[in-house]
Amino acid sequence: MTRETEEAPIRHGGDLGEARRLFPQAPEPWIDLSTGINPIPYPWPAPEASAFTRLPAPADLAALEAAAAEAYGASPGQVVAAPGTQALIDLIPRLRRPGRVAVVGPTYAEHAAAWGRAGHAVATAADLAAARDADVAVVVNPNNPDGRVVPRRDLAAAAAALAARGGWLVVDEAFADLEDVESLCAAAPPACLVLRSFGKTYGLAGVRLGFAVAGEPLIGTLRRGIGPWAVSGPAIAVGRRALTDPAWLREAAAARGRDAARLDALLASAGGRIIGGTRLFRTAAFPDGPALFGRLGRAGIFVRRFEAAPERLRLGLPAGEAAWARLAAALAG
Amino acid sequence: MTRETEEAPIRHGGDLGEARRLFPQAPEPWIDLSTGINPIPYPWPAPEASAFTRLPAPADLAALEAAAAEAYGASPGQVVAAPGTQALIDLIPRLRRPGRVAVVGPTYAEHAAAWGRAGHAVATAADLAAARDADVAVVVNPNNPDGRVVPRRDLAAAAAALAARGGWLVVDEAFADLEDVESLCAAAPPACLVLRSFGKTYGLAGVRLGFAVAGEPLIGTLRRGIGPWAVSGPAIAVGRRALTDPAWLREAAAARGRDAARLDALLASAGGRIIGGTRLFRTAAFPDGPALFGRLGRAGIFVRRFEAAPERLRLGLPAGEAAWARLAAALAG
Repeated sequence: MTRETEEAPIRHGGDLGEARRLFPQAPEPWIDLSTGINPIPYPWPAPEASAFTRLPAPADLAALEAAAAEAYGASPGQVVAAPGTQALIDLIPRLRRPGRVAVVGPTYAEHAAAWGRAGHAVATAADLAAARDADVAVVVNPNNPDGRVVPRRDLAAAAAALAARGGWLVVDEAFADLEDVESLCAAAPPACLVLRSFGKTYGLAGVRLGFAVAGEPLIGTLRRGIGPWAVSGPAIAVGRRALTDPAWLREAAAARGRDAARLDALLASAGGRIIGGTRLFRTAAFPDGPALFGRLGRAGIFVRRFEAAPERLRLGLPAGEAAWARLAAALAG
Repeated sequence: MTRETEEAPIRHGGDLGEARRLFPQAPEPWIDLSTGINPIPYPWPAPEASAFTRLPAPADLAALEAAAAEAYGASPGQVVAAPGTQALIDLIPRLRRPGRVAVVGPTYAEHAAAWGRAGHAVATAADLAAARDADVAVVVNPNNPDGRVVPRRDLAAAAAALAARGGWLVVDEAFADLEDVESLCAAAPPACLVLRSFGKTYGLAGVRLGFAVAGEPLIGTLRRGIGPWAVSGPAIAVGRRALTDPAWLREAAAARGRDAARLDALLASAGGRIIGGTRLFRTAAFPDGPALFGRLGRAGIFVRRFEAAPERLRLGLPAGEAAWARLAAALAG
C-alpha cells in the first residue's frame, strides 16, 4: 500500500473556468468532456414555486428516499438522501474515530482526502484484498477512471471481515446506475455503506442529490449526521420524478452504451488504447497524452488528465452530432 | 446552567404534515405561521437550465460568496456558503474535539442537539456572562423565539475571552438581515463564527442556502469541512440575484416591520402579552396557550408551541389580507 502524503488541491473535472485559463484562445462554446455526467439530462419538470419557498417537508423527503430505495432495489428505510454524494464522502469519515483507512486506487481522489481531513491514516490499496486489514476499506465500483468492477461476492466477503472487527466497507456506486454491475444496495451487508449519485446518471449535477444505502444502525447514524432539510426543495421535486421513471433509465443506459462504444472507436482510431470506463466516460492511454490534451484544449474541448498517469485521458460523452464532429476533427489533428 | 439530558426528537415548525395529523378536520388550505420565514418571497428568476445540469462552477460559487460578503458587510474571503444554515450548525461541532459547550437559551434547539451529537458536553446558559467559562459559547442574535438582542460589545468581549484560551464564539444571526442589530460580520473577531440565513430573509427556505462569516484560520477550516459543490446551481443563481438587490431588502424590512406591529396588536387584542420576536415572527404568552393552539389549529392555522413554556405561542406573519382575516377571526374565536 502507498501512503498518501500530498496535500495539494484536488483537480476536478467540470470547471470550464480552468479550461479558459489554460486555453484562452480556444473557440467558444467549449465542449466539456471533463466529467462523467450524462450529457443528455433527464427532461426535468420545472419545480413548483413552493419547492423554492417552503422548508422541505419531512413527508416529501421520505417519498424521495422511498423512490430511491425502489430504484436501487434497496429496502425502504435503508436509504438516506444528501445534497450530493460529495456531502456523504465528506460526512462519513467524521462519523467514526480516527483509524486506518485503505482506499482501493487509483480512484476518485476525494475519498482519500476526506478521510485524511477527518484525521484518519489513509493508504492506497492496489485491490480489495490488500485493503481488508484496515479499519475502513473504500471501493469505487465501477471504478473511476478505469471502470474496474469488483464482484459482489468479493465485496460481501470483505464487508464480513471488516464487520467482524467493527470496521466499515464503503462502496461508491456513483456510476452503477447505467451499468450491469451487481449492486450491493439490494442487500447491504452490515458495516457496509453504499453511495449512489443522482446527478451523474440523470445529467443533473447542479441540483446536488445523492444517496447512501446502509443497514441499521449505520443508516440512523448517517441520518442524524446529515441533519434536517439537507436536500433542497427543487432537488426533492426533480429527484422524485426522475427516480420513478425506469423507462427513461433503460433507454439512457442503451443510448449511452452506444455512445461509449462510438467514443471507444474514435479514441482507438486516434491511437488510443482503451483502458476502460463506464457508459458515461472512457479512459484511454495515448502515445503522447499531454500533447493530445493540449490539442483538444486549443480546439475548445476540455478533457480530464491525470498527473500520476500523463499518458491517460478520460473523456465524457459528447452531447450531440456537432460535438461529435468537433471531437473527431480535433482527434484527427 | 442547566444540563441538557433529553434525547427526544426536536419539534420544528414548517411541517404541515404534522398540522394535518393533529387537526385532521381543519379547513384547507392551511395557513402556516409555524416558521419565521418571510411569507413574501424575493421574486426569484427561474434558474437557467445549466444551473440544474452542470456542476456548480468554482467561479460562480465565489461570486455568490462575494455577493454575500458585500450584503453582510463582511470582508471578501471571510464568507463560506453552505446548503442552509442548518448544515453549518451540524458541521461546526465536528470541527473541534469534544469539550464544554454553553448555549445561551432557551433558543433554537438544533444548536445544543448538534453539539451533543458530536460528543460535546452541552449546557444551557441563561445569558452570555454565564456562558463565558465554556470552551464554546453559542448565541442566537436576535434570539429565537424571544427576540432578545445581545449588544456587540458584549459579544466582542466574550469572543476575546474565549479566543484567549482557544475557544469559539458562535453567533447565529439567522434573523439579523431585517433587524437593526449590530452584526458581527463587519469585523468578525478571531475565534468567532457568525451564521447568516438566506432562506428566512428572502422567503426561499426550499433552496437551502446559508453562510458562515469568520476570520482566518477558521474560515479555511469551514471551507474544507463543507467540501466542493455543497451549494446547488439553483441556489447559487437565485442567491446571487437576491443578495445584490439591497432595495428589495430595505423595502422588505419596512413592510415586515409593519406586519410585525400589526401582528402584535392582533395578539394583544386576543389577550396575548408580547414577549418579543423579530420582524419575521412574534412570540406572546396567553392565559391558556394550549387552548389557543388548538383553536387556531382547528381553524387551519398552524403556529409554533413550546413544550417547556406551554403558555407561549410563536407566530410567523400572514402572507396576505385573506390570511390576516382568517387569523383575526380565529383569534377572536
